[in-house]
Amino acid sequence: MKTLFLAAALAFPSLAIAQPAPDQAAVLRDQALNNDTLAWDLIEGLTTEIGPRQAGTEAEARARDWAVRRLRALGFANVHIEPFDMPVWMRGVERAEIVSPFPQPLVLTALGNSAATLESGLEADVIGFQSVAELQAAPDAAVRGKIVFINHAMAPTQDGSGYGQFGAPRRQGPTIASRKGALAIVVRSIGTDHHRNGHTGVQSFGEGARPIPAAALTVPDAEQLQRILNRAGDRPVRLRLTLTPRNIGTRQSGNVVAEVPGTDAAAGVITIGGHLDSWDLGTGAIDDAAGVAITTAAAHRIMQAGRPRRTIRVVLFGAEEVGGGGGPTHFRVNSPARNTVMVGESDFGADRVWRVEFSFAPANAALADRIAALLAPLGIVRGTDPATAGADLGQWVRAGTAGIDLNQDGTRYFDYHHTPDDTLDKVDPVQLRQNVAAWTAVLAILANAPERIEGITPAPARP
Amino acid sequence: MKTLFLAAALAFPSLAIAQPAPDQAAVLRDQALNNDTLAWDLIEGLTTEIGPRQAGTEAEARARDWAVRRLRALGFANVHIEPFDMPVWMRGVERAEIVSPFPQPLVLTALGNSAATLESGLEADVIGFQSVAELQAAPDAAVRGKIVFINHAMAPTQDGSGYGQFGAPRRQGPTIASRKGALAIVVRSIGTDHHRNGHTGVQSFGEGARPIPAAALTVPDAEQLQRILNRAGDRPVRLRLTLTPRNIGTRQSGNVVAEVPGTDAAAGVITIGGHLDSWDLGTGAIDDAAGVAITTAAAHRIMQAGRPRRTIRVVLFGAEEVGGGGGPTHFRVNSPARNTVMVGESDFGADRVWRVEFSFAPANAALADRIAALLAPLGIVRGTDPATAGADLGQWVRAGTAGIDLNQDGTRYFDYHHTPDDTLDKVDPVQLRQNVAAWTAVLAILANAPERIEGITPAPARP
Repeated sequence: MKTLFLAAALAFPSLAIAQPAPDQAAVLRDQALNNDTLAWDLIEGLTTEIGPRQAGTEAEARARDWAVRRLRALGFANVHIEPFDMPVWMRGVERAEIVSPFPQPLVLTALGNSAATLESGLEADVIGFQSVAELQAAPDAAVRGKIVFINHAMAPTQDGSGYGQFGAPRRQGPTIASRKGALAIVVRSIGTDHHRNGHTGVQSFGEGARPIPAAALTVPDAEQLQRILNRAGDRPVRLRLTLTPRNIGTRQSGNVVAEVPGTDAAAGVITIGGHLDSWDLGTGAIDDAAGVAITTAAAHRIMQAGRPRRTIRVVLFGAEEVGGGGGPTHFRVNSPARNTVMVGESDFGADRVWRVEFSFAPANAALADRIAALLAPLGIVRGTDPATAGADLGQWVRAGTAGIDLNQDGTRYFDYHHTPDDTLDKVDPVQLRQNVAAWTAVLAILANAPERIEGITPAPARP
Repeated sequence: MKTLFLAAALAFPSLAIAQPAPDQAAVLRDQALNNDTLAWDLIEGLTTEIGPRQAGTEAEARARDWAVRRLRALGFANVHIEPFDMPVWMRGVERAEIVSPFPQPLVLTALGNSAATLESGLEADVIGFQSVAELQAAPDAAVRGKIVFINHAMAPTQDGSGYGQFGAPRRQGPTIASRKGALAIVVRSIGTDHHRNGHTGVQSFGEGARPIPAAALTVPDAEQLQRILNRAGDRPVRLRLTLTPRNIGTRQSGNVVAEVPGTDAAAGVITIGGHLDSWDLGTGAIDDAAGVAITTAAAHRIMQAGRPRRTIRVVLFGAEEVGGGGGPTHFRVNSPARNTVMVGESDFGADRVWRVEFSFAPANAALADRIAALLAPLGIVRGTDPATAGADLGQWVRAGTAGIDLNQDGTRYFDYHHTPDDTLDKVDPVQLRQNVAAWTAVLAILANAPERIEGITPAPARP
């Protein structure tokens, strides 16, 4: 691998002196790849000592305290919390059973912001659809007074693109069903596994849609309900649904911020991070203790290697899962300083980084080239789409800050995503180290790059 | 494959006329391998139209009615029920949470015959052990008043032998813990997966052991509890456990019996089957709708091929999971006729048969050879251990009836066994057909064998 970096040094002779020699970045990268134990220890610590940490709950507050303690002990500077308030929705009882023609229980889990049924439950006939489009096309009269079921056929993809398309039943289904007069909705979990663990996730009722009970059947239970509908023939399929979530009002959440101070304040700040909150069902190992741990461990390696030129700011966001007060709060608090020059988030599990994407100004093309070259020995390809910087930092990119994405392999991500199965055993320590190596390499270059890191063209405001 | 069976015919020239030509058995075998749809339809029907069917419940009664209807419609003769009474234990609420030092919920499921806690739960310190032997060796004073946790390291095995050894925490743990004065016990699930679904299973409190609450943590939760114990250091780990199962008294269960009548009553009966009941958590697809379906489909193929010499009796046993009144009832009702000459059960999932084992009299060695030869093209090896004929029919072998085992590949069986994850999607249709082919081949030979099928030496009575 050394040959490759000598070649890179020859291509940018003027940089070979001004910043740490490229082979120092490669050394840091390879040390992380071979030896990192901090990321694992952080994931194990957060998932074991805190466990599930839903946004706005007392558990998320304990997670913030835990993070502040750990970050200070690791030597980070300026460790502090950016608090914000948010409404909190809490899961209650969740139970379903086919009443007829084939009585049996089904396993499901409420979607975020689901309305509650009576404690005694809600019983109605099921009407099944294979897609949101099919539901949309159905006459209101066919849907009114029924429990809507939406099936789909999500399959794993490396880039996670199935989540956008096949996530529609969860995101749009409840609103459309409500507008059509459905009493409740159950969707096939937005997941790619075959285990009896439901995939929760946030949804919001749109304009004019009265909140109704909304839940995700596990994939095996969705298949079962489809078979029951098929085998019932002309007989109505009657479902009893009991969901008792509640809105408990406003609570506090917050971001935990920590810094590796740079030597050159004028060179700007590199902001990276993951999110500290998790859904309530699992211990949030891959979503997103991993991102917290990967970015923290990488920044820590840069700190240990000597003071970088640019400040590295690590942000562990609150409330990402539920629509995210954390990202906007961080932007509101920090954007007035106009010194953030680069953003990137890790929030897609702990499997290996397979692709890097850039939203860099044309003037920084050489910087992107150096990063791509340093990542290539990790098996990382260079993509052609712009970086979006994730849910919590995307606002910066849209506002004109440069961004970088290290895309993780998502092939098995949606087997566990938002389920009770998001636990430590799903993290592969070898792939985790590759992530730390990739972020360490990126930070080694970005934090010390001698050139100015430019802004980019802001994206048009989203409707 | 035809060559092989011509060779078999040459080896037993006197048999080539007296029974269907060996190549007819091979044809039946291969038709099953390529075309069987009945077994899948039976599994899908039973798991979809009935679903979970715990022994002694109304669901198991519906499963019997379903089976009687299906078996009659398929043309089986003498379809009837062998009823028996049994005590029924029913699952209630099951909940656990670490109270300190790291508050969080844990997922578990009660073991059969677990005692209940108060509705408000039971709270105590946890004491952890790595094996039953370690618990056994602990001073009573260390265990008294505590919640015992037993960990283990069960890994998948093809022959399922891990279940015997690593099942000890479930089978012996509760009794030993109770005798030592523990308030309750939680064991690592006797399973090989990493999903948050507990593996239930029966256990019985032995002589002098007061029933205590007893449950299985999912594998990820057992690993989590072990990490919590490790990270707690000197701090006690306090667990709150709420289990509200109850004994609901005596209920009726029963076996469903169906026959393919033979032409020669003096030649004896071949009894095969699986069990109709399942645990309550899943739909019992691999345990044991598969066995029900495989043996029924194989017998049906023999029936369709023309009347066999020997009667084939298919028994769908009740109450196998909970200690089994079904097997003893069938033995009590049927053994006085002294005409059952061969037994074999399918109760280890739906993955491929990889081995055949025999408990045949020495005089029937040639019969075993013919069966082994007919199975070899299915990739089935000949084992050297005696057949035991499974939980429901083993009593016959111990009493001197010949038996045959078609061992199924158990590599992934304990990923799903006794969990909510035992659902239809775990059945591989291709491997299922191989099972039907194997049983069809066995029945084609056994039901038509011209020689007498002899009894075997009874096993010594078990203590």
